[in-house]
Parts: sequence; structure tokens; C-alpha cells
Amino acid sequence: MSQPIILYDTPSKVPGNAFSGNMLKARRVAQYTLAYKGLAFKSVWVELPDVEERMKAIGAKPTGRRPDGSDFYSLPTIQDPSTGATVSDSFAIAEYLDKTYPSTPAVFPPSTKALISVFDSALMNTIGPVFPVMAVVAAPKLYPRTEEYLKRQLEIRMSAKWEDISPVGPKREEGWKNIKAAFGVIDGWYSKSGGKWIMGDTFSYADVIVAAWMRSFSVLFDKEQWEDMKSWNGGRWGGIVEDINRYSILD
Amino acid sequence: MSQPIILYDTPSKVPGNAFSGNMLKARRVAQYTLAYKGLAFKSVWVELPDVEERMKAIGAKPTGRRPDGSDFYSLPTIQDPSTGATVSDSFAIAEYLDKTYPSTPAVFPPSTKALISVFDSALMNTIGPVFPVMAVVAAPKLYPRTEEYLKRQLEIRMSAKWEDISPVGPKREEGWKNIKAAFGVIDGWYSKSGGKWIMGDTFSYADVIVAAWMRSFSVLFDKEQWEDMKSWNGGRWGGIVEDINRYSILD
Repeated sequence: MSQPIILYDTPSKVPGNAFSGNMLKARRVAQYTLAYKGLAFKSVWVELPDVEERMKAIGAKPTGRRPDGSDFYSLPTIQDPSTGATVSDSFAIAEYLDKTYPSTPAVFPPSTKALISVFDSALMNTIGPVFPVMAVVAAPKLYPRTEEYLKRQLEIRMSAKWEDISPVGPKREEGWKNIKAAFGVIDGWYSKSGGKWIMGDTFSYADVIVAAWMRSFSVLFDKEQWEDMKSWNGGRWGGIVEDINRYSILD
Repeated sequence: MSQPIILYDTPSKVPGNAFSGNMLKARRVAQYTLAYKGLAFKSVWVELPDVEERMKAIGAKPTGRRPDGSDFYSLPTIQDPSTGATVSDSFAIAEYLDKTYPSTPAVFPPSTKALISVFDSALMNTIGPVFPVMAVVAAPKLYPRTEEYLKRQLEIRMSAKWEDISPVGPKREEGWKNIKAAFGVIDGWYSKSGGKWIMGDTFSYADVIVAAWMRSFSVLFDKEQWEDMKSWNGGRWGGIVEDINRYSILD
């Protein structure tokens, strides 16, 4: 590989911590996959409202459809100058990198791709209910255009006004309890693995996703909130963030 | 192993096809796990209303709690005369057998226990919505005491009268569409595996669970319904049942 891979990503105001609404976890997953593999990359920042135009311009494929049937484009997307490939979606990016750079550590151990893809969905279903609380806490840390875009999108998806999504008080407290319950479910998964990672002693894409979420929580929530989270489940989450932070990422 | 393992199981009127309500899939999973490993076993039949008393008598552990907080006992349960062990819950039975009989083919390839347990939950969540339709179609095939017990349990769980759960007509048709959609999700998982099984070319407990469901569908639904199912997703489900039928089970 002669030139670094280009990672299209979304910026935020928080120093060292970008944020992209719904793509929050996905962008970190791409970063950590690249970093874990030791592949050089450089980030190109695209604000959310500009994603579609920019992705079309570089010939990226849509990653889904909007409710109205139109194409939906999302970040992260990579461009690999060494092969000319453009790949969107963090799972597809990891698959591409495992295949294209077989001498780097694999994030999909042999024969685990389907199981890990089911894990990915199950994790999203488990973490999903905590997203509204997180979005409300994190929104003020975004660039104004991205913040407005995220607010509008979330209001549509939740069929609620922004200020009603997770107001301080009983609703926020209930949200916090839901987060703790979700963490408990994920902790139960780890406890079955017989080791530190979801595949026991083998680090995999499943851990990359969990770590991506946890790292995001560690920077998006307030300090006391993250301190609380770190105390849950025997300190598992703080440990995972500490481990993933060994792989330095540019953000 | 000098003596066959005893498998506590629930009988039905359907020749060669026992049925145990909620434990439908779990009992077949235990059967196929034993058969795949080539371990000799004999079935002991316990009707649903007698499960709790019988399990307490042999010192089996409860597998969960009822909404009122009391212990809940379920089948399948095995007793292994060679070790004196009594194990309930199909996942725990498979774990026990892999560990106790390491020279038999493993159903958990190394480091996959947590991933497969998440798969187990995800499959249950995906198949779950089809259970009411299945229960209504299957109920007349049960022994009277078991049928009554199942009906009462399902009415409580669904907060609905038995005849309203899946009546013939639009509601049944909608149920059928949901089944087809659920199969589509599972087919999507398989398509990511790069092989015939969830772990590519490696058969695992994940396939045992899927096969257990499919085999149950093949005998519980009417012939035309199963013919329809077999035509879905490129004939994947008929193929899986054909494969699993190679392992003869006593039921």
C-alpha cells in the first residue's frame, strides 16, 4: 500500500471527538478497524447535510433507502487509492480490508462473518433504545449545521419534538435505567465467552463495535455519567475503552 | 459411556413427532445435539403439567422464574448415568456434552459460545412472532392434557382468548406473511456465511437450532403449508430438514 486510505467522516466541535448522529458508532468502527490493522488512513471531513452530494460525486453506492424510496447515502466511506475501490458501510469496509490486506490482523476470524453480522444487529437492537438520551446529551457538541440536521432527522424518526425526546427529569432517569439494563445484556454475552473478548481470547469485529459504542459514550456523556457507566458490570466498559485507546485514531 | 443418556421429553399424538409448546424447539435441539454427536440416549416422556414435580424429584434445577417469582422448570433435561449429572436447558445440555464428550463432534467451534448464544436469542426474537400461528395449528395434534395446558399458558401470555389468537382469515394470512418475512431475515444471515451453514462449511449449534425449528415446522404445519415454506429462499429450509433427518432421532 503506497498511499493512505481516505476515510470520509463527519466532524464535530468536540476536540478530538467527531460525531455523526446515526453514524456515530459506524464511523468509529471504521476508524478502529483501520487502526487495529495498522493501515494508514487520512480523514476527510464532510458535514451531514453534504454527505449525499459528496458521495455521489465520488461514485459511492447508497447504503439504504429513505422511507420515500429514494437512495440514502451514509458515512463512513473509504476510498483506497491502491485499488481504486470505494466502499461504504462499516461492515462492508471491514470485509473489504480483511480481504484486500490479508497480512493484517483479521477482524473476522474464519467462518464467523454471519455470526458477527447477527451480533451486530443484536447489539444495535440492544443499544438502540438508549440513542435518544445520547443524542439529546450530545447534540450541543456538534457543529451548528450538523446539529440542526440531526435534530430534524430524530424528530421525524421519533415523531416527537426535540425537547420532548429526553427532557431532564423522570424521562431522562428512565432512559438512564434503560442504558444500564442494555449494558447488562451485553455483559451477559461477554460472560459466556470464556475470555476477555466476545470470542474468548480472540479480538474480533464484534469487540470493535462494542468498543466503538463505549468510546463514544465516554466522550459524549458528561464526565460523571461516564464515571457511573465505568462502574457498571465490574468495570468492563472502562477496560474496553482503555484497550481500544491503544489504537490511536485521528479524529 | 456405558449407559445411554436419559432425555426427559414431552410426548404428542402425532406419530413420530412429539411437541411441548414453548419447549418445541428446545427439545429437538437436545435430540439433534445428542444424535449429531452419536451419543446413545433414550427418551422418557413427561406431559407438560407433570414437568415441575418430575424435575424436582430428580433434582433438576429450575430454568427460569414465573412472573409471580416462583421457580419455573422446563424440558428438555438430561440425566447422564455415566457422570451422575442432571442438566436442563438445551444450550446448557449442548455445553455439557461438548465438554464431557470431547471426542464427539463439537457443536460449539472454539471461541464461538458467546456469538452463538447471541444468535440463539436473535433467532428466537425473529421466529417468536410466528409462534401464535404455529401453536394454533399444532394444538389439535397434542395429547388432551398437554393441549389444555398449552392453551391456558398461551392465553395468559398473549392476553387473548384462544380463538382470537390466530383465527382463519385476514389475521391468519397476516401471520403467514410474518413467517415468510422472518424466514427472509434468517436467509439473509445464511447468505453472509460463505457456505451452507451459519459458519460456512462448519456445522454448529446455530444450525442445530435453525434445523430444529424447520423440522418442527415440517411436521406441525399442514402438508401444503410446509410445501409453501420449502419453496421460500431458494429451497434452503427443505434442504436443511433433509440434512438434519440424516441424524435419526427417537420421538
